[in-house]
Amino acid sequence: MSKTILITGGARSGKSAIAEAQALHFGTPATYIATAQAWDAEMEARIATHRARRGPEWVTHAEPLDLVGALAATDGQGPRLVDCLTLWLTNLMLGGHDWRAAARALCDALPRQRDTVVIVTNEVGAGIVPDNALAREFRDAAGLLNQWVAATADEVFLAVAGLPLKVK
Amino acid sequence: MSKTILITGGARSGKSAIAEAQALHFGTPATYIATAQAWDAEMEARIATHRARRGPEWVTHAEPLDLVGALAATDGQGPRLVDCLTLWLTNLMLGGHDWRAAARALCDALPRQRDTVVIVTNEVGAGIVPDNALAREFRDAAGLLNQWVAATADEVFLAVAGLPLKVK
Amino acid sequence: MSKTILITGGARSGKSAIAEAQALHFGTPATYIATAQAWDAEMEARIATHRARRGPEWVTHAEPLDLVGALAATDGQGPRLVDCLTLWLTNLMLGGHDWRAAARALCDALPRQRDTVVIVTNEVGAGIVPDNALAREFRDAAGLLNQWVAATADEVFLAVAGLPLKVK
Repeated sequence: MSKTILITGGARSGKSAIAEAQALHFGTPATYIATAQAWDAEMEARIATHRARRGPEWVTHAEPLDLVGALAATDGQGPRLVDCLTLWLTNLMLGGHDWRAAARALCDALPRQRDTVVIVTNEVGAGIVPDNALAREFRDAAGLLNQWVAATADEVFLAVAGLPLKVK
Repeated sequence: MSKTILITGGARSGKSAIAEAQALHFGTPATYIATAQAWDAEMEARIATHRARRGPEWVTHAEPLDLVGALAATDGQGPRLVDCLTLWLTNLMLGGHDWRAAARALCDALPRQRDTVVIVTNEVGAGIVPDNALAREFRDAAGLLNQWVAATADEVFLAVAGLPLKVK
Repeated sequence: MSKTILITGGARSGKSAIAEAQALHFGTPATYIATAQAWDAEMEARIATHRARRGPEWVTHAEPLDLVGALAATDGQGPRLVDCLTLWLTNLMLGGHDWRAAARALCDALPRQRDTVVIVTNEVGAGIVPDNALAREFRDAAGLLNQWVAATADEVFLAVAGLPLKVK
């Protein structure tokens, strides 16, 4: 049976490795839907590290904005891993798109998928309140997006030191 | 039976909605003890959003500093929701009050309540160490306050993506 | 039977008190392996507060860099508490040492201990992405170090408001 699974956690908490293992549990080949855009050398290095860890059982599908379209295009080909919601939100906000409408469309599309979707996101709200208004706005949006996707997900895990803690 | 219940979590982790549902479980009408003070437009908007979500079963009791007095004044009228400890601490510290004495008085008062008290607080210590000393001092105080209230609480939950994870 | 136990959590989440109780469960005297170096008055005050809480059943062994050596020197004398990994990492990085090699050596040494080792570390990755590159680099390193030690540990706990939440 196909599922929607959300993996959240802080930076370098092992979310991606947990998500990859869970996706492969639903079969191979698996599709890696990458929302990352390489804005600078640091991000390029991060993307390369993630890609190097994934094995030959993965097909990469890069899509910074149209997640619903990427899910439609890859459904029926095995499990999908969306990595990650937080970068997708960043792309939407920086591009001046309506992130709330996009989030609603995603939450509508998820229960209609035939193949499993594992989604990685970030916990960004557990530090001190940020100084600048844009960071606070992003933090609020990311928290709401996580709540909405968690509400529609079948399973939710919090990654702590590389270990999955079941929340739902 | 009445209880003290603490809900902690990061920004926009769904703490307030979880706390509201838990409080209403103990009956209606319920009293919303609001510690927020509208310092600026951003805070005013946040307060308005929270108030709009609460239904007609809620009576609002605004009290930025004297939480023990607010609990005494509202006991016997149904469950109370204190939202939130972190803003209360901010009010105490900015006003030059002795927050440790106030916290001790609160922890003494909580077990003596006849009606349930659900308390919302924030996780602020899971980010990188803040640059400025005041933010570090606040972060330390908030962490200690959370520990003290959690020690006296009957139940403690960590909100993750809108979902309650039972800690105690 | 001896164990490796990792306690992670945010600032002032009660990690040290939880770790001390767990270590003393394995016998007394217990050795407190302190990685802290007092760079300034704030850190000195923090160290003094921690020391004041520990009772006479504790022997302090200060070691900012050579954790493997400190474990070898104290094995066979009762449980050890390493407080904390994050300061050890800071010392390694600021001193220009190869923290990855040091982390691998630590993870190799831990399963070979005869006496229990309880290790305290910090969650630093659940806030907003830091502005400066050094903070991001430290955050990434701390997250990886936590994952590696958690993978070799027998038990892992997340401290939330002074309460231990079992992760492994």
